[in-house]
Order: sequence, then C-alpha cells, then structure tokens
Amino acid sequence: MKNFISARDISNIEAMVQKAIGYKADPFKDKALGINKRIGLLFLNPSMRTRLSTQIAANNLGMDAIVFNIDKDGWKLEFEEGAIMSGNTIEHVKDAAPILGSYFDILCIRTFPSLVNKHEDYSELFINQFIKYAGIPIVSLESATLHPLQSFTDIITIEETFKELRKPKIVLTWAPHIKPIPQCVGNSFAEWINAWGKADFVITHPEDYELDTKFTDGATIEYDQEKALEGADFVYVKNWSSYADYGKVLCNDSSWMLTTEHLAKTNNARVMHCLPVRRNVELSDEVLDSASSIVNLQATNRVWAAQAVLAEILHSVN
Amino acid sequence: MKNFISARDISNIEAMVQKAIGYKADPFKDKALGINKRIGLLFLNPSMRTRLSTQIAANNLGMDAIVFNIDKDGWKLEFEEGAIMSGNTIEHVKDAAPILGSYFDILCIRTFPSLVNKHEDYSELFINQFIKYAGIPIVSLESATLHPLQSFTDIITIEETFKELRKPKIVLTWAPHIKPIPQCVGNSFAEWINAWGKADFVITHPEDYELDTKFTDGATIEYDQEKALEGADFVYVKNWSSYADYGKVLCNDSSWMLTTEHLAKTNNARVMHCLPVRRNVELSDEVLDSASSIVNLQATNRVWAAQAVLAEILHSVN
Amino acid sequence: MKNFISARDISNIEAMVQKAIGYKADPFKDKALGINKRIGLLFLNPSMRTRLSTQIAANNLGMDAIVFNIDKDGWKLEFEEGAIMSGNTIEHVKDAAPILGSYFDILCIRTFPSLVNKHEDYSELFINQFIKYAGIPIVSLESATLHPLQSFTDIITIEETFKELRKPKIVLTWAPHIKPIPQCVGNSFAEWINAWGKADFVITHPEDYELDTKFTDGATIEYDQEKALEGADFVYVKNWSSYADYGKVLCNDSSWMLTTEHLAKTNNARVMHCLPVRRNVELSDEVLDSASSIVNLQATNRVWAAQAVLAEILHSVN
Repeated sequence: MKNFISARDISNIEAMVQKAIGYKADPFKDKALGINKRIGLLFLNPSMRTRLSTQIAANNLGMDAIVFNIDKDGWKLEFEEGAIMSGNTIEHVKDAAPILGSYFDILCIRTFPSLVNKHEDYSELFINQFIKYAGIPIVSLESATLHPLQSFTDIITIEETFKELRKPKIVLTWAPHIKPIPQCVGNSFAEWINAWGKADFVITHPEDYELDTKFTDGATIEYDQEKALEGADFVYVKNWSSYADYGKVLCNDSSWMLTTEHLAKTNNARVMHCLPVRRNVELSDEVLDSASSIVNLQATNRVWAAQAVLAEILHSVN
Repeated sequence: MKNFISARDISNIEAMVQKAIGYKADPFKDKALGINKRIGLLFLNPSMRTRLSTQIAANNLGMDAIVFNIDKDGWKLEFEEGAIMSGNTIEHVKDAAPILGSYFDILCIRTFPSLVNKHEDYSELFINQFIKYAGIPIVSLESATLHPLQSFTDIITIEETFKELRKPKIVLTWAPHIKPIPQCVGNSFAEWINAWGKADFVITHPEDYELDTKFTDGATIEYDQEKALEGADFVYVKNWSSYADYGKVLCNDSSWMLTTEHLAKTNNARVMHCLPVRRNVELSDEVLDSASSIVNLQATNRVWAAQAVLAEILHSVN
Repeated sequence: MKNFISARDISNIEAMVQKAIGYKADPFKDKALGINKRIGLLFLNPSMRTRLSTQIAANNLGMDAIVFNIDKDGWKLEFEEGAIMSGNTIEHVKDAAPILGSYFDILCIRTFPSLVNKHEDYSELFINQFIKYAGIPIVSLESATLHPLQSFTDIITIEETFKELRKPKIVLTWAPHIKPIPQCVGNSFAEWINAWGKADFVITHPEDYELDTKFTDGATIEYDQEKALEGADFVYVKNWSSYADYGKVLCNDSSWMLTTEHLAKTNNARVMHCLPVRRNVELSDEVLDSASSIVNLQATNRVWAAQAVLAEILHSVN
C-alpha cells in the first residue's frame, strides 16, 4: 500500500480487519517495525480521535510521531497552480510538500472541504497536491470527501460485534444538525460497506440529500426512515449537507433524530456514530447512553485501524 | 492512589515528599516503570510550568506523553447532563472521556473555573465528569478550585529549605492583581498545609476575601497583614478573587503588594509564589530578585512532585 | 559551543559543514549522544521548517524534544526590566527563563523583531534576556536580526552543489514582497558568507535598502541588479524591509522579482531562497519549478545543520 485515501487503496479489507484485530490483542508486537521511521501528522483542521489514535498507533509501532498544526503553528497554504501569491496564503503546497516529504517517512493529513467549491472539493485538490508533491506515502486523516480510517474502523467494529452467519442489515441514516457538515463520513461509509460486500446496505435520508452515486451505487436508497430501519442490525447515524445543492442545509426536521422509538423497529440494532455527536440533536441521550450504542467501541478501534494501515505502509517503505 | 485531585488523595504526605526528593537526586531511576504506558495531558486552559513539568516527569518514568489542547486542537466540550447540543459545544464529556480513557493509562487535565457559577465551580463539575466517565486515573493539573501539584511542590520546597527542629511559621498573604483570579492556589495551599500539619499557619487578606473554610479550617485568619507577617519563616504570596462575592475584585489596595518593607517584619522569611507573577503588582522586583525568593526552586520542584505522583499511580495501575 | 546565535559562535565553519554532511550520510550514528537529555523548542512566532527540522535533529540524536508555543499554550512574556506588570504581559522572562533552564538541557527559541523599535530589535533584547536568565545553552531558531541555522544550511548547500576549484560568485538579491519582512535572513546570509570567506560576494537591492554594515562589510553593494547578476553561480533571493527607515516598505518595483530573464545573465546560477516564498511575487513559478532551483535541497539540509549544532552543544554540555 502506497497511500491510504480511500477503500480502493486496500486490496483485501478482510485481511486488514484481521491485522487490526491482531494489534488490538497485542498492541506492541511490532514495536520494532517503525524504529528510526518518522511520521508527520499535519492538521489543517481540528481533530481529536483521529489525531490521538494515529499518534498512538505510530508510537505502538515504534515510530517518532510529530504533530504539526500547519495553519496555526506554520503558514497558510496555497493550493492553486500558478497563483500570484499576493494575498493571505504564505506558502505553496508545491514548496511545502516536498520538504515535508524529505523530513518524514509517512505523512498524514487532515483537510476539510470548503463546502463552497464542489468541483475543487470532489477533485480532492488539497490531498492530491500533497500526493503529487510530497513523494512519500500519504495517509488521509479525513479529506474533503472521504474519511477512510473512520470507515475502516467501522467495519472492524461491525465484524467484532456481529457473530451471526447471515449478512447483517446495515442502515446509514441521515440525522439533523445545526450547521453544514461535510459528506465525508457518509460517502466513506458507503464506499467501504460496498467494497466490503458483506451486508444488506440501505441508506435513508430526506429527498435531495443523495450522496455522490460513485460511493453509494450498490446500496438501496430509501426516503422513508421508518421503513429503512425495519429489521436493521446496525444503524449508522450521521448528518451531512446537501451534495446536489452543494453544502446547503435543506432540512431541519427533528423527527430524523434517532431515538429509542426509531430503534423499536430494528432488530435490536447496534447504533454507530463517528463522533463528535451533537446529543439530542443527531441522537438522543437515551440511545447514546443505552447498551445499543457502540460509539465508544468504534472510537477505541480507531487505534487498531490506524496501526494496521501504518504497519502495511511501513512494510512497503522498508 | 487512584486519582490525584486534592490533598485527600495522599495518605502519607511525608512519604510522598521523600519520594519526590528521591527523584530529584536520581531522575531516571524508574525509567522502566512507565514502559508501554501512555499519559494524556489535556488542556482546556493555558499552562507552562504544569504542562512542561508533567510532560518531563512522564518522560523520566519512560512513558509516552501526548499533549492535547482540546479546545484549540479538538472540540469545545459540553459538561451539562441532558444538554440539547444545539449551541457552540461540539462534544459531550460523556462521549470524549471514555474514549480518552481507552487511549491512555493516565489522564491529566487542566480546567479553570468560570468564576461566574460558584456552585458549578465548587462542585468541580468538569474534572468530576472526567473521573466519572474516563475510567482511568485522573490527575489534576489545576481544576476549578484546587491546584494540588502546586501545593505538593510547595511542601517539598518548604521541607527542603527549612532545617530547624521547630515548626515553621507559614503565612499565606493575599496580594493585589489587575483581574479576577481563581481561588485554586490559595485553597490548595491551605488544604495541604493543614493536612501536612507541621506548621504554624496564618492566612492574611483584606476583609471579605475569606477562602472556603473547608480548606482553611485550622489556620489563623488575620486581617492585619503587618501583624500576620511578624516572625514568619515563609511568606506565600498570591492573589485570589472573592469567594463570598464570587469571582469579584473587591480590593485594589497596593499596600498589600509584598515589598522588602513587609519582609523586615519577618524572620528572614523565604518568599514563595506559584508563578506566573505580575511583577511590581503582586510582588516587588526587589523581593523577587533577592535571595529571599525561592520561587524558582518551587518551579523546579514541580518536576519531582509530578514524577512522585505519576509513579505512585503507575504502581497502582500495573 | 555554548550558544548558537550568530556566525561568531562557530569557530570553524568548514568543520561544522563536514559534521552536517556526516549526519546527512548517517542520521542515527549519534543516537546515544542525547540519551536522557532534553531540549525545549520555544516559539513566540510561527515556524515550519525550523521547527520540524530541529525537532527531527534532536530525535536523531536521541534527545527528548518538547515543543512549546509560549504565547498560545502559556503566557505572554514581558522583557523590560523593572516593568510594572499591570498590562497584557503575564510573565517576565526573568521568571520564565530560569525555570525553562532547569527543565531543559538546551533551549531553542524563535522570536521575531517588532520592526518598530530598531534599537530593541538590534540589541536582540528577547534572546539575550533568555541567554542572561536561562543558564543553559540557547539556540536561535531565528531572532530579531539573525537566522543562523538558515545561513549555516545555506553554506552546506552551496558546498554540496559547487564543485569547481575557483571561488563561486554569490549574489544576494532583494526581491519584492507585499508586507514588511524582517532583515534576519539577509543579515545572517551576509554575516555567514563573509565569515566563511570562500566567495565573491555581491549584494544588490534598491537604494535605501542597505542592510546593517556590521553584517555586510566585505561584500560588494551594487544597486543595478542586472549588473550584479552577471556571471553569478548562486543567486539568493530574499525580501527585507528597510533598515535605515526602519521596518518600512520603500519599493514595490516588480522588476526586482527574479525571473528566467534575470537568470540569463548569470553563469547558470543555482537559485536559493529560505522559504516560505511568495510565488510570482518574489520569484517566478518558472524559476522555482526549474532545475536551477535548489530551495528544496536547502530546506532538506536544515535537519543536518541543526543536528550538527545540537551535537556540538551536547558535547560541551556532557
């Protein structure tokens, strides 16, 4: 594995899940793998779980990890080719990336979408510029349209908790929020569940909240949330802003908030969310504080997902 | 020791002082103790000495230390149970704490009081929510009402510098400041000196600046600063805002600023302050730059205090 | 070597260049040198290359490195002796520096000039206060008037790329910028090239942009950029604000921006810049993206320059 940007970078998801579960059982077994290797964690946006879990995963593998909040501790980056830099950007990615590529063995990057320029966001301009110019493996810590470490974690968590022989029914349901949120987690969850291929997969959301079909193709789209939830084994709750009317909030209907009433229709579904969650806006306290919630397990598994990915890349670097 | 929040968490202060002094003599003697243990340092507020000394103490014990400025690098936390999170808080401590508890072996937290809501501050809502939900040992790096690592350091420093057989006279004196300051250091110093029990302890401040009696009971309160300072062996200088008229600045009287004239009444007292200090507002340059000042020694000892506490917790974790 | 603030702290530049080149060939050969040594990296201003390269250099030498953004994570410092601290500064360097000196074995500091108070800037008040009060070796990560790690790197890079027996012609040329920039890099490059003594050294800039002669004495000053560039082997491009009319921007003439037309007059000159660079303001894309540019090599060499300096100081500390 060279870069880790989307599900397409993984040839065998099942093998990677087993690798992650192996690290969960024995976190320090590969502590020699990363000796004298250095990983840079570059943040253009805030992060808690992703930041900490990746740092911990790197340490577990014996690597030096250096965190750098580039916009706060360094300089605001320019991404446009040919820009006349007389504005508020101070350094071009063409100059920053090769240097970071010389300082580190692996570079991890978090960068959010603008939610204004759909073409730029969906071309993944920022992270692709790093891939183009850094010359070393790039790991996405969430980019403009995808959040692959989250989705990989989600599949680990599903495999860990679902022990029946049949396929689980997994429902991704849109939830309300107070402001425009990227489509990354929704896109990415759809992409990974489809690539994994071991579920009956339904996506439910208000009309005009369709995600990009390049990620959702293969899933059933159902506008009736109640109907979608019937018999679900897992319910993944997440808000996103409109893809069609890009970045807009089109619906505030609080009946989409997942409550215990909604869960009654499911097959004792386990409830998932990537966190942070707006309690009593996206999901009710009652659900989050119940035994149905596996959001903490998801977050805990972030370490093992990151560790499996970094180890795989280290093998290809060494 | 499970948590380190106040003097009550220490069963034997004297033994802990000796442990700290042992680390001062040989900082790296327990470097194997923390192998494969990880400590998180979580800041909701600024810090210099506490941050650096705790990080160094952790490193001296062989632990991985990860610093996280949660409000800047991550998300603004909600602490109220049942909150409908449609405002500016993004993540509930109920969701953040268990995850941090899974990522780390020990979690250190700095969180200041509001100085607005006395009940909330004095119930130590923030740090208690972490204790309730993190499931791992919590170390206070200063909380709403107490600063235990500072007070433990202060006692180490007093023991290190006072070699007479009699009890020292220790005076905690209020000093002016330009803005409302928490009561933490005053409360905590009173609590620890009382728990330590080896001093004649006097607290002096303007009327209406009484600290919470739950910490000060056992000390003599004296409104006349001059009288209080007579024969003092140690003078601890610190501003705090009013506890009764909560968070208010009731006095600006610069005659309370500690100068060499004040020291003339003492028994060649050593002068202490937790730092940072507003020079020529709380304490005169003349005093701070004199041999009477042991503020640097206090700050230096922060490392050994933190190291003793972390080692004690590691023993209970292992 | 005790401190590293300017070229004058190096007795033998050539030997230091060889030391750095040795680390480039074998980064981890001295990993035992810094065991149980701790380095503090203190930032009063932003930094990318300097921050990361010094952290990496310290790790390569086996040291614990702790980064501290003092103004953001800690307190705003006061530098004036005798200040009555009733304003917005919270801690005096007299109190902070000795403590940092007790926490670390080496202290690295980045602090920019005010560009307002020339006397204060050129007395290097901030970094000299740290030298005075910290009591441990101080390494400049760029100070008010100099940037020695950059200039040392520049000489390493020149030696690495120029293999002819004759002296190279090196031209430092002023370039336009959109805002007032410190004189540090220009001053420092002049100081180091003069101290190195192995070049024909020409400085070109608009009139009234003279740098402090204490650094430039020995170089030829030439106001005609075209004439200056004739036959150059290296062209170092950099903006600075006026030293005479302190901190002012006196010229916006875009013809000073280095383009391929300018390079035509040189001896296939290699083009240098300390980065970050304002593309198409200071230097054209065409030049930066050409084989003439060695700006990435300069930035890469920052690690080895820092490593040579830290190693030299560690030898003197041990």
